[in-house]
Amino acid sequence: MSEENVVYIGNKPVMNYVLAVVTQMNGGTSEVILKARGRAISRAVDVAEIVRNRFITDVGIGRIDICTEEIMNNEGTSTNVSAIEIQLAKEFSK
Amino acid sequence: MSEENVVYIGNKPVMNYVLAVVTQMNGGTSEVILKARGRAISRAVDVAEIVRNRFITDVGIGRIDICTEEIMNNEGTSTNVSAIEIQLAKEFSK
Repeated sequence: MSEENVVYIGNKPVMNYVLAVVTQMNGGTSEVILKARGRAISRAVDVAEIVRNRFITDVGIGRIDICTEEIMNNEGTSTNVSAIEIQLAKEFSK
Repeated sequence: MSEENVVYIGNKPVMNYVLAVVTQMNGGTSEVILKARGRAISRAVDVAEIVRNRFITDVGIGRIDICTEEIMNNEGTSTNVSAIEIQLAKEFSK
């Protein structure tokens, strides 16, 4: 099993992703990475904040990275889209 | 003059904010902080990426912080909203 457990944030309701993160962490994972692109970036920040404020209070925000990804559309042209990665990690985890 | 020059990201077109950052940096500011709340968070990431990829290539992403802010509405009840701060800093600046 990989230490890096990734949750991709899309257009579903925020609580769906919160539940996914909480489930992984309660299952013994000490670190979860949230990944989002474009407009879902705001939702990823919401997920991180809700998890640590309401559900798992010993979770901290680790590294936050932003970058640009190139997406190829059906016509063969490419578009740039911003992306974010937010690391959630249990403090004092062993 | 403060070292911290803040650009608040709202609902205007992305390029308005890009121009604001580029103007500040070309005026001699070595560090600009982007602040955004709610849905504007995605736009703040876009601004940071466009500035460093297209306009000022010696600018790097510094600290990125996320937090939750409590907003009081007209009826006296409060709502939580996520917020982000992105630090843009010139590398090798003196």
